[in-house]
Amino acid sequence: MAGRALTLHPDRLLPADPGVRAVGRRIYEHIRSLPIISPHGHVAARILAEDAAFADPTTLLLSPDHYVTRLLHASGVPLDRLGVGAGPLSESQSRSAWRLLGEHWPLFRGTPVRYWLDGELADIFDVEQQLSADTADAVYDRIAACLQRTDFRPRALYERFGIEVLATTDDPCDDLAAHEQLRTDPTWGGRVVPTFRPDRYLDPAGPDWPAAIERLGAAAGIDTGDYPGYVAALEERRRYFVAHGGVSSDHSAIDARTDPLAPEDAQRVYRAALRGAANAEECAAFRRHMLGEMARMACDDGLVMTLHPGVYRNHHAPTARAFGADTGHDIPVRTEFTRALRPLLERYGTHPNLHLVLFTVDETAFSREIAPLAGFYPSVYAGAPWWFLDAPDAIRRYRAAITETTGFSRSSGFVDDTRAFCSIPARHDMSRRIDAGHLAGLVGEHRLDEDDAMQIAHALVVHNPRHVFKL
Amino acid sequence: MAGRALTLHPDRLLPADPGVRAVGRRIYEHIRSLPIISPHGHVAARILAEDAAFADPTTLLLSPDHYVTRLLHASGVPLDRLGVGAGPLSESQSRSAWRLLGEHWPLFRGTPVRYWLDGELADIFDVEQQLSADTADAVYDRIAACLQRTDFRPRALYERFGIEVLATTDDPCDDLAAHEQLRTDPTWGGRVVPTFRPDRYLDPAGPDWPAAIERLGAAAGIDTGDYPGYVAALEERRRYFVAHGGVSSDHSAIDARTDPLAPEDAQRVYRAALRGAANAEECAAFRRHMLGEMARMACDDGLVMTLHPGVYRNHHAPTARAFGADTGHDIPVRTEFTRALRPLLERYGTHPNLHLVLFTVDETAFSREIAPLAGFYPSVYAGAPWWFLDAPDAIRRYRAAITETTGFSRSSGFVDDTRAFCSIPARHDMSRRIDAGHLAGLVGEHRLDEDDAMQIAHALVVHNPRHVFKL
Amino acid sequence: MAGRALTLHPDRLLPADPGVRAVGRRIYEHIRSLPIISPHGHVAARILAEDAAFADPTTLLLSPDHYVTRLLHASGVPLDRLGVGAGPLSESQSRSAWRLLGEHWPLFRGTPVRYWLDGELADIFDVEQQLSADTADAVYDRIAACLQRTDFRPRALYERFGIEVLATTDDPCDDLAAHEQLRTDPTWGGRVVPTFRPDRYLDPAGPDWPAAIERLGAAAGIDTGDYPGYVAALEERRRYFVAHGGVSSDHSAIDARTDPLAPEDAQRVYRAALRGAANAEECAAFRRHMLGEMARMACDDGLVMTLHPGVYRNHHAPTARAFGADTGHDIPVRTEFTRALRPLLERYGTHPNLHLVLFTVDETAFSREIAPLAGFYPSVYAGAPWWFLDAPDAIRRYRAAITETTGFSRSSGFVDDTRAFCSIPARHDMSRRIDAGHLAGLVGEHRLDEDDAMQIAHALVVHNPRHVFKL
Repeated sequence: MAGRALTLHPDRLLPADPGVRAVGRRIYEHIRSLPIISPHGHVAARILAEDAAFADPTTLLLSPDHYVTRLLHASGVPLDRLGVGAGPLSESQSRSAWRLLGEHWPLFRGTPVRYWLDGELADIFDVEQQLSADTADAVYDRIAACLQRTDFRPRALYERFGIEVLATTDDPCDDLAAHEQLRTDPTWGGRVVPTFRPDRYLDPAGPDWPAAIERLGAAAGIDTGDYPGYVAALEERRRYFVAHGGVSSDHSAIDARTDPLAPEDAQRVYRAALRGAANAEECAAFRRHMLGEMARMACDDGLVMTLHPGVYRNHHAPTARAFGADTGHDIPVRTEFTRALRPLLERYGTHPNLHLVLFTVDETAFSREIAPLAGFYPSVYAGAPWWFLDAPDAIRRYRAAITETTGFSRSSGFVDDTRAFCSIPARHDMSRRIDAGHLAGLVGEHRLDEDDAMQIAHALVVHNPRHVFKL
Repeated sequence: MAGRALTLHPDRLLPADPGVRAVGRRIYEHIRSLPIISPHGHVAARILAEDAAFADPTTLLLSPDHYVTRLLHASGVPLDRLGVGAGPLSESQSRSAWRLLGEHWPLFRGTPVRYWLDGELADIFDVEQQLSADTADAVYDRIAACLQRTDFRPRALYERFGIEVLATTDDPCDDLAAHEQLRTDPTWGGRVVPTFRPDRYLDPAGPDWPAAIERLGAAAGIDTGDYPGYVAALEERRRYFVAHGGVSSDHSAIDARTDPLAPEDAQRVYRAALRGAANAEECAAFRRHMLGEMARMACDDGLVMTLHPGVYRNHHAPTARAFGADTGHDIPVRTEFTRALRPLLERYGTHPNLHLVLFTVDETAFSREIAPLAGFYPSVYAGAPWWFLDAPDAIRRYRAAITETTGFSRSSGFVDDTRAFCSIPARHDMSRRIDAGHLAGLVGEHRLDEDDAMQIAHALVVHNPRHVFKL
Repeated sequence: MAGRALTLHPDRLLPADPGVRAVGRRIYEHIRSLPIISPHGHVAARILAEDAAFADPTTLLLSPDHYVTRLLHASGVPLDRLGVGAGPLSESQSRSAWRLLGEHWPLFRGTPVRYWLDGELADIFDVEQQLSADTADAVYDRIAACLQRTDFRPRALYERFGIEVLATTDDPCDDLAAHEQLRTDPTWGGRVVPTFRPDRYLDPAGPDWPAAIERLGAAAGIDTGDYPGYVAALEERRRYFVAHGGVSSDHSAIDARTDPLAPEDAQRVYRAALRGAANAEECAAFRRHMLGEMARMACDDGLVMTLHPGVYRNHHAPTARAFGADTGHDIPVRTEFTRALRPLLERYGTHPNLHLVLFTVDETAFSREIAPLAGFYPSVYAGAPWWFLDAPDAIRRYRAAITETTGFSRSSGFVDDTRAFCSIPARHDMSRRIDAGHLAGLVGEHRLDEDDAMQIAHALVVHNPRHVFKL
């Protein structure tokens, strides 16, 4: 097995200035070993409930992770050669996809994907050579061998990763059986909480909306034939999630608008939509109305509301048709918050039960809209950099953009938002290093005392996510 | 009085790199003691004319300052407990509000509010402990004791702060009696100039517009019953401000558009608006037309024109109803300048009398629109970072965003824009430190000679504001 | 000749931190002497074909360069005194304009214009004093004397600059005689390639469109009386450019939209436009349709497509009337890519022949839209910072904005885009220094190994432009 040694430098991601770095090291040491709180992500509860061995390196680390596959695709590797959207992979398919990753590994230089995967390979699988065309097979074998071992089962890794809470993302009709299984399993000491993700039930323009609404009614045991029943069914399913440990609902639409409809208009559009007779404008109006309704319900049932707007989904329809959703071609668009959220915030913005966490992939909103909103409304929090922005320089820009308006208390704490279970420790570690370095920079410019910086660093890892997500 | 010592580090806000910091220190020393030129702000002339003792610490430093109260509100402190929008406070109300500030002081770590207030406490009031729940009473007592002394009266502080010019912001109908009193007082050696702020008279959609127009006519001694009289009355009041030392007019609208109306359309909308019969679209068109008219008048009377667009005022109507305007929930929106200002600039952009200073709370406009405009039009200047952006990192981003396109000569010089009289020295000091550090960074990368950097630093404090504001 | 010494510091533009700077120096040394690949610019092939002496310093370095004249104009120097838009200048006009530059030279402190021009004066013309009012005449004389020498003829400078490829920008009807002359000249060893720039033929709203279309037909030898002939003529002229060495087409419109028209609608609008009877909306729809058509043709003929949208041309009509286009008042506007390009990318985004390089003067698009697009579509590349953004801090922001999403492989490599022939080496040198410093920063934070950084730096100068522009 040829190749350069894979080593993780202890000072990686800390500022280069020796004086600032020394402060950064101390801050990082103060927080590096704290438990991981992951209040929003896409790992399935079933994985931990079943606790089966992971299938193979590619299925675990490559094919389902659009962060990885998209840049390979941009460089000419067809998605089908990476196992994207495929069922279980044969050993040869899996190895062949992994070799493609090895061959193209230099593409990822300078990206967080490389940082995360290097961290996973070194820290979890004890790989000692950098991934490359030459080492791909050996690395594959090493990981595959690990995956056979019981100490690489999901629950063992959960323990090893030091996860305190892990939130999943779930369909409102999900019976949460896997969550229930974990909660009632005396051998399981972790905490996995569901997240209510109702997008498809709130947007009549989505595919098969009437069928979805019927499922919703069935799950709730409430007739959704008319608007009041539909609202009641949503309320019921939220209660179900609360009863099963859920702490938040998650919302992703192309815009963040929340204009309410008059009850009779909501009723009218609902009926039309069920018949497939609502036009695009009516559907959008209904979706925006329902986002406001979610806030109203949140004031009642206390679910934290996270908002992830501004992504154009399935930009390349041919890829979506061939490989399904979440395959790397969701592309951000400009996003407006100030006007969009005003109807919601005028009604519920100062309600003591509401926590509204705003995420964006349009960085311009951080200093212009999100920080000013989070710096006035007690309900609003500035969500951590998300998706394309979950990376060292982007996180620094986020801190620089929001802190002067909101300080640190209005920031959500880190959210890994990942489907890649093994990347969770590396992602949280990256966040801790960058925040430590950011705080060290403030100390280095005498804008903050070092003991205050220590407190803040600790709060960002522990207090902020617990408080913001009511954990 | 327990608590950590409050000390202001001599190198605060200077870059952490030792070599760059050494250059930054030298540049800062070169400018730190220069007089303060404050060409735009919200301190009332009356305060200096009357020269009465300030009432109490909370009224002086807390309750009227939405920079401070908004973050407390976000953290759950109701505005009424802070004395916001209230009349004179009793000693117990004032002290109780101050204690809330002390308890919540950690919220402000990393914000300029903390930097300014620490500077005020240490430099003006000789407070020696950091503010906290434990020290709040002692700090309160210390400030309250100072406020009894004659050397803490407004005029004494004006002298002590080293202010050379202070601009106020005034209603066009104001008789400027306080300004007149100061100008004719032989014991007063300062310079306080009024600023013509006509927003409410230019926007027919504003509250009580017909009544405002009637007041305008009365103040000008001109019948505003029809459009030409209205225009003449505005011209007359501008002349009145010029005669009383005014150097600029200030304009704040939700957008920066300046499309002119044909005279007959202006006339028609004006008449309709006086009857309360103009619709929203007509009102906006009239407002935009009048912004262009302001530029026309500026070419005649020479008043510098400052533009502060892009803030959604009174975002939370319930708070506005309970506490009034300027209570912390004005939120920025995206702002366009290139197309919006074209009608104005095509007509007046190269007029030798026009100075048009563009401010924004949408940072994206700095490199994209404001710098390119200021780098071509002799009338256009890039206004200093304003409001949410008046903070160390934001000022650095401003310099980095505009300098490569416009150099330093097209930058307005610092504008404190504050209603907090005691924060003026700390705000200007912050700006000087950040500019010194920015210039030191250019020297450190051999992009600028140190003697050039010294000259530029001096010009930014003295020459630029004098030139841009015709002082 | 009085004045401060003009020296170019060997470490200029490298990071100030001593450790990072040392790495940056090594990386820069690795790439500083590599040949210049200039795949997009505005130097005319005729200059090299004729190889005549340059006329005078002002005509060479000042009057045609709107980067230089715009800031002088902003500071009150009328464009006519700078020779803008004038024919050949007399010696006294040229010298007088140059003196104005000398007097106003401090305006350019902190701008790339100063960096480039200092580099040109020192490296090309061996000027030893900084430009100033006092030294302007001596510097002028020094340059003028050089221009008489055969080793300052265009071809000699091309050699001396180490240019490997130079792309020009050409009208589709151009017979490319100058290019042909160079290609068939046995004494010429360079490579000058034409670029197909069809804007005026694609936008029926442009001036004299019917006449332009007639010229197009004549050049192609194809009747453009109807839409199919027009399309065929464009295809023919593209082939002509390919046959004459062309590698790319260049497109600049106010927006980047690419919505296709149905053939019958394209036909209808085309006919109306030829009669001058198409309205603004139809003209825009036709222009957007034709941008998509250009992509279709690119899939056939292989021309790389560069897109430069988002500039409001001729913002100040009085200046445009007096001095012509490209005189300093083209101002950026907000630009959208995600939705705008979707129709094009859905059809051609994964076509192996398409290379689409996206440039912007709206920096917000880098992290939000351009990097995400370039990180998925194999056809899309993130164009280097352009025009107002071709400057040290802006280039750093670009790298920081795109690298975490796309790595380095999806970046176009540097594009000087200049009409100032003598600025080419200084511009490429600036880019190399900034990229070296950026990479050194990543090494300094242990985000990249130094040998990887060396490889990347080399690729950005050599591999990326060759690959992206198919050279």
